[in-house]
Amino acid sequence: MLDTDVRIADSLQQLREKKPLVHHMTNFVVMNDCANITLHIGGSPVMAHAPEEVEEMVGLADSLVLNIGTLTTELVEAMVSAGRAANKKGIPVLLDPVGVGATAMRTAAAKQLLSQVKVGIVKGNAGEVSVLAGVEASVRGVDSAGTAGSLPDVAQKLACLYDCTVIITGPVDWVSDGKRTCSVYNGHSLMGAITGTGCMAGSLVAAFAGTVADPMLAALAGLACFGVAGELAAHTEVKPASFKRALLDEVFALTGEKIKKMVRLGPECTS
Amino acid sequence: MLDTDVRIADSLQQLREKKPLVHHMTNFVVMNDCANITLHIGGSPVMAHAPEEVEEMVGLADSLVLNIGTLTTELVEAMVSAGRAANKKGIPVLLDPVGVGATAMRTAAAKQLLSQVKVGIVKGNAGEVSVLAGVEASVRGVDSAGTAGSLPDVAQKLACLYDCTVIITGPVDWVSDGKRTCSVYNGHSLMGAITGTGCMAGSLVAAFAGTVADPMLAALAGLACFGVAGELAAHTEVKPASFKRALLDEVFALTGEKIKKMVRLGPECTS
Amino acid sequence: MLDTDVRIADSLQQLREKKPLVHHMTNFVVMNDCANITLHIGGSPVMAHAPEEVEEMVGLADSLVLNIGTLTTELVEAMVSAGRAANKKGIPVLLDPVGVGATAMRTAAAKQLLSQVKVGIVKGNAGEVSVLAGVEASVRGVDSAGTAGSLPDVAQKLACLYDCTVIITGPVDWVSDGKRTCSVYNGHSLMGAITGTGCMAGSLVAAFAGTVADPMLAALAGLACFGVAGELAAHTEVKPASFKRALLDEVFALTGEKIKKMVRLGPECTS
Repeated sequence: MLDTDVRIADSLQQLREKKPLVHHMTNFVVMNDCANITLHIGGSPVMAHAPEEVEEMVGLADSLVLNIGTLTTELVEAMVSAGRAANKKGIPVLLDPVGVGATAMRTAAAKQLLSQVKVGIVKGNAGEVSVLAGVEASVRGVDSAGTAGSLPDVAQKLACLYDCTVIITGPVDWVSDGKRTCSVYNGHSLMGAITGTGCMAGSLVAAFAGTVADPMLAALAGLACFGVAGELAAHTEVKPASFKRALLDEVFALTGEKIKKMVRLGPECTS
Repeated sequence: MLDTDVRIADSLQQLREKKPLVHHMTNFVVMNDCANITLHIGGSPVMAHAPEEVEEMVGLADSLVLNIGTLTTELVEAMVSAGRAANKKGIPVLLDPVGVGATAMRTAAAKQLLSQVKVGIVKGNAGEVSVLAGVEASVRGVDSAGTAGSLPDVAQKLACLYDCTVIITGPVDWVSDGKRTCSVYNGHSLMGAITGTGCMAGSLVAAFAGTVADPMLAALAGLACFGVAGELAAHTEVKPASFKRALLDEVFALTGEKIKKMVRLGPECTS
Repeated sequence: MLDTDVRIADSLQQLREKKPLVHHMTNFVVMNDCANITLHIGGSPVMAHAPEEVEEMVGLADSLVLNIGTLTTELVEAMVSAGRAANKKGIPVLLDPVGVGATAMRTAAAKQLLSQVKVGIVKGNAGEVSVLAGVEASVRGVDSAGTAGSLPDVAQKLACLYDCTVIITGPVDWVSDGKRTCSVYNGHSLMGAITGTGCMAGSLVAAFAGTVADPMLAALAGLACFGVAGELAAHTEVKPASFKRALLDEVFALTGEKIKKMVRLGPECTS
């Protein structure tokens, strides 16, 4: 079997050949950045949220992102419709439970989506994923404020609970599908100085999930690409708005060679 | 009669003197970019979509943009109200039928707007305009995926159907008012690597339409300015986020001299 | 008592230690920029507007921004709920009455918010503040088109009317709490060439208001930081999109030393 870094590099090549259509139902803060980063990695973004059209738009898509960053009751209902259409069609659904634990509405919305839609990948920060996994944690606004659990355990727990792949983003990213758990060490601290990096990571993972069949590989590929691009951007920029521009540029300029040279996965990833 | 390049350069000068107020009812993905590019060319943008205020806001405006990129039923109803107010006042309405052909809702919304509002300018990609013109075509998300027609014919057909000016954006842009059909060769391939360039082109055309009486001239001026700025941006930048910043900068820095030197119109434009 | 420049520099230090959570209910045009600038100054932004969750989100926040730039009837109702929760909790509320005077809906919404919520700080342009203060003025879209009053008088009048602190932004910014009135001379003309600078200034003021008890100090600190960052950005950039990136970068890179060296307050501020 190929090493993971080679499989990630191959996935990037496949993504650029397929140009997967990633249907986003996402928040208003990051919509532009998520559309751009999807284009830059080689995918095709579409944003559509009206209940009258989401099922039909899903019919054209290769993957679906449900991000509750600026949720409303109507939007969550439309997400359920879109998610069910995605399940019926057999395309992967990624849930980004932004701010879960901060308000009862967000926690309820994420749980509703997890119970009414077969979600393939959940991506959140430590606090958000812990809350969904039933581990004591706190969330302040949309930022994690700590968890009582160990990150790989929390990821694995939620993965088993919903039979899905779980990503916890942070200084080190963790991915678990319940059986395998693996960490990604790429990234840079400046990514925490700009808004929406978590959401952008979700767009990349969804673009890979719309390309390769294995959600664990899609998760690792999206996180590795984002982290490597962040490191490359930090080579030239030390302030956040310039860094953000460079980050988007570096996603566009990624190559399999860069990935193979720079990706840093935890030792447990080879097991 | 003056050559078209001189007329475009003069229109830019007039735009900057008049500072037309361009009322946008547009999608959430591009709102910030469209507001900025309207300012940079010399106009004044306003975004307002509440049904209670759109008619009054139109009363202050010099042109109106209706862009259905993230439509809802309520938004389309408000667009009809705003469009009718614009018709009553006599200011031009530009329709950007984003994603028409991808979902039934989008196609119905664009046709509703075309039937209930006198639209002066329709601006879309090859797939979108073909669908509205009744020419076989396909749209994938918000991207054109080909048309069975020739672009100048498709533009002319839709222009005759609704007695309006039609723009088809692409590697070469086409403009037709039914009687005259003309192409613009300016632009750069990096414009396809960022989201919202079509929408931004619409904002520029609407700013010119709020300045000069001839919609054909407004269309050519907006497309030429955008394309020339894109070429200038590509002189210094080769990655998309840096290119986007440079593109906006170059719109701001456009002069009549640059336009006259760089604009490239098709040979049919002189007829 | 410390000089104002020293107090502003100290406030910046305190803000970065506290990392105040600024709950924004703001318009779709500027959401991304406002989130980023809040992060860059050292705060933590959250955007939430669903009526079901705003009161709970306010419970986590240190200050609340109500910006009616793309208002709807439902959003204004949710703003009232959030504002009352903020009043109950005792955190400051900043109102940005975008476009007041342009449409009856905007004027009514701002007056409703001022009557049903105890607003601590109102921040607008000359036209908007004049309309609220009952001084003859005109607003074109979201831009001020002149006022019949003198700016310090208008600011003071509105401050007395609603017992709050009032900011008028412009080439010179004015701040009044009804008793004290003070001007800030920092800033750069390029700030008028990009959209949302007024909204971003509001985010900075709200971050300071969530940190220090004195709203006058919060207002001066936010305006001074923004203006100083703008001047620093203009040292290297002369075109608007590049300037915007540099402006955000310079907010991130601000220090107390830069503030103390560069801040320019009117002579009346020392009284």
